[in-house]
Amino acid sequence: MNEDQLIGWLRHRTGSRLIGDDGAWISGSDSWVVTMDSQIAGVHFPPDLDPAQIAHRLLAVNLSDLAAMGSEPAFAFLALAAAPGFDHRRFFEALLRAGESYRVELAGGDLAAAAATSAVMTLLGRPAASQPLTRNAARPGDRLWLGGSVGESAAGCRLVSMGARVEGQRVQLPADFTVQAPVTRAARRAVRRHLLPSPQLELGHWLVRCSATAGRPAAIDVSDGLARDLHRLCSASGVGAELDLERIPLATDLKDLATSLDHDWRDFALGGGEDYVLLFTLPLQQQPPSRFSCTPVGSIVEGSEVVILEQGRKTELGPRGWDHLQNHCLIDKKKAP
Amino acid sequence: MNEDQLIGWLRHRTGSRLIGDDGAWISGSDSWVVTMDSQIAGVHFPPDLDPAQIAHRLLAVNLSDLAAMGSEPAFAFLALAAAPGFDHRRFFEALLRAGESYRVELAGGDLAAAAATSAVMTLLGRPAASQPLTRNAARPGDRLWLGGSVGESAAGCRLVSMGARVEGQRVQLPADFTVQAPVTRAARRAVRRHLLPSPQLELGHWLVRCSATAGRPAAIDVSDGLARDLHRLCSASGVGAELDLERIPLATDLKDLATSLDHDWRDFALGGGEDYVLLFTLPLQQQPPSRFSCTPVGSIVEGSEVVILEQGRKTELGPRGWDHLQNHCLIDKKKAP
Repeated sequence: MNEDQLIGWLRHRTGSRLIGDDGAWISGSDSWVVTMDSQIAGVHFPPDLDPAQIAHRLLAVNLSDLAAMGSEPAFAFLALAAAPGFDHRRFFEALLRAGESYRVELAGGDLAAAAATSAVMTLLGRPAASQPLTRNAARPGDRLWLGGSVGESAAGCRLVSMGARVEGQRVQLPADFTVQAPVTRAARRAVRRHLLPSPQLELGHWLVRCSATAGRPAAIDVSDGLARDLHRLCSASGVGAELDLERIPLATDLKDLATSLDHDWRDFALGGGEDYVLLFTLPLQQQPPSRFSCTPVGSIVEGSEVVILEQGRKTELGPRGWDHLQNHCLIDKKKAP
Repeated sequence: MNEDQLIGWLRHRTGSRLIGDDGAWISGSDSWVVTMDSQIAGVHFPPDLDPAQIAHRLLAVNLSDLAAMGSEPAFAFLALAAAPGFDHRRFFEALLRAGESYRVELAGGDLAAAAATSAVMTLLGRPAASQPLTRNAARPGDRLWLGGSVGESAAGCRLVSMGARVEGQRVQLPADFTVQAPVTRAARRAVRRHLLPSPQLELGHWLVRCSATAGRPAAIDVSDGLARDLHRLCSASGVGAELDLERIPLATDLKDLATSLDHDWRDFALGGGEDYVLLFTLPLQQQPPSRFSCTPVGSIVEGSEVVILEQGRKTELGPRGWDHLQNHCLIDKKKAP
């Protein structure tokens, strides 16, 4: 059973409407959106990563889920299991500083000592509109958008697994990674993007509030790979999609960086994951304000098939990407497409 | 820095009123109590434990925190990192069945594959009264109560670390544990108590609702050892306490069981932890209904000293027990007192 099958079984078994989005929307006179996401040494980050960066990443990936639900962060709960020698002060100072900048209050949690470091966060957010953003609102004819480039984090992940680190303002690349200057710069950006992602909260708030005259937007954050997350959005909405490969926004020199890492750039862009940008739909006549630098990458169609358009040719796009039950290491090294 | 020092620093650093109880009380037109607790292989349970029992334990320890806050459980969020070969179906079937019996809805979470199994739960509960139960309401002159016996779980923990398991309706004791029949029965009960604890939700609800004519109760769940949790309650309330050793309720034959495990029973009762009974205070003239089988074990006094009364002699009682930053294994083997 893979991750999506397990979640499907859980939804069926529980009959819960709350399972299956980036967060659960608990309605009432005070409505809350609740998300939960983990960072585990050896799975999501290398065991020697700076605790300050673990804290930043943990908060960012959770905030990205709130962004995909169109919610304002409010309270954070943390379960931290720390390996021997873990610098708790450094972790918490970074977490609290980052929390202040997003107006998140650390409100409780749980501490443990363990053989390997892992951190789990639950965020409670307030919906920024009377309904949250969900994955299930895509309709045939809608345009498909990306809130930013994809694939760069996967390249950064590869570099981090080779030893790259962010140290203060500097990015230290692996000693045996020798490439031309433009690719070196792309590599530095990729490492930073992977370790210190930026959640698209403002875009999520705009989406949930935008006057949806012809229908409301659907959204998901790209955490497990564009292909997999697009499949999830389509499956939740009961629609298909056409993704235009040539329109997918890529970071500068990502193709050369991928080559230098012995990967096909499509592998990173479609199946890499941890991009933490929003993938969303809007009716044809709507478009996000230019300040968000979003890119139209395809369209929603009738049916359930997800296809990719490359040089005029359509091929089926499988749900490639990260499966949380079947991937155990930092990056799936299988080549693509 | 130990656990209580870290939490003290966090409270000071954040200025948050929410940190430092068994749960955080988020007030509003819908108030919520939020708790978070973890179960980690090798720390809280042996790696080969039946996934159904991990699920039961995870829910129970979280419900115990809600009990100590006088709250009704409502929604559960789960972060599960599973080791290779983990039986997800068995885990979730047990979790959902237990959840149904406590009227908890599984509403979301996060899945991962990892080298070692760990599970974190966040529970959202509804306060059963206009104010939650807290640790900080104890007043000099109050009587100190225990909702059940202590020390039995620590004995069970010792047996589990020697190989004891619950299999269906049977408790399998370690092959090399050979004792007289009454102690065998005590050992079986201890293993069951340790692996399958029962949260005292009804008692928590009674406490939060009881007409506190002369002051409201204070409560904490005994998860890290009676001595340590009593220190926490006293510290939060700005009071001291006198604990009467001879009044502490013990399971039948626990003293003999402790001896057969080469431990002093006081070690288990005062510093063992994971009892998941409520430790609470009530004004002198109040007492819990007999159906809860509570026992008065001492009194709250002025000052900040916590003393233990044994055969007419008072000695200072240190905050012995489980420190989540300093204990890495199933049980602290240091002898006491």
